[in-house]
Amino acid sequence: MPESFALRPIGRVESPLLDRAAAPKQGDEGSPDAWVVFTEDVRPALRDLAAGTDVILLTWLDRARRDVLVVHPRGDTSRPEQGVFTTRSPDRPNPIGLHRVTVLAVDGLRIQVRDLEALDGTPIVDVKPVLGRPEDR
Amino acid sequence: MPESFALRPIGRVESPLLDRAAAPKQGDEGSPDAWVVFTEDVRPALRDLAAGTDVILLTWLDRARRDVLVVHPRGDTSRPEQGVFTTRSPDRPNPIGLHRVTVLAVDGLRIQVRDLEALDGTPIVDVKPVLGRPEDR
Repeated sequence: MPESFALRPIGRVESPLLDRAAAPKQGDEGSPDAWVVFTEDVRPALRDLAAGTDVILLTWLDRARRDVLVVHPRGDTSRPEQGVFTTRSPDRPNPIGLHRVTVLAVDGLRIQVRDLEALDGTPIVDVKPVLGRPEDR
Repeated sequence: MPESFALRPIGRVESPLLDRAAAPKQGDEGSPDAWVVFTEDVRPALRDLAAGTDVILLTWLDRARRDVLVVHPRGDTSRPEQGVFTTRSPDRPNPIGLHRVTVLAVDGLRIQVRDLEALDGTPIVDVKPVLGRPEDR
């Protein structure tokens, strides 16, 4: 198996959230509206994104720890430890963040989104549509 | 912005699906049951995975093209081209696959899953729980 694959940032989060202690645990738990600013090289891939739709953002959680395999869920030490693959802890071997957000506005290479708990400066690595019913795919 | 981030495989898919032409477009469109075999170093992270639950697998779609930015959805040339960020095409700048699957069995470092359309040998890069109601998190 190859040792690693090279993930390239395609954009970055602009958010008032500056550190983990202040960030909500999940996007729908009080995240402020944020912007995602994409790089010029992916402009064609963005062209059909529309305000009012939900999308899935994948991020690289660059302030997470990669050597953590068990955690107390939500950092609550009254809860027993769990393997990270049954939690949404940012600390995990490959710290990819998965965020369902609503697109509020599209402005060229920038989109404004609701319900994003990622910190300011977090790299974006992919955007995917939410899948509807099979007949709509 | 850093040039790239190093994603490390944590396991691999074992599936009867051997090539893209034969694979379903989505997991729930006739995928055969498959196994995911994890590497020894992530054993503690797996320990709470349970049969009967749904999980999200993230894969590295190692047979995808990274230079494709617009596609005909589902490869159907009668449909107009779309930017890849509004499609689930495997061809995209960072070919991360997102798969909701049902865990059928857990056997040490191996789990059997339903509804996985990834090809045999596809590297796994993360496993996440499906989030339920906020009060269950």
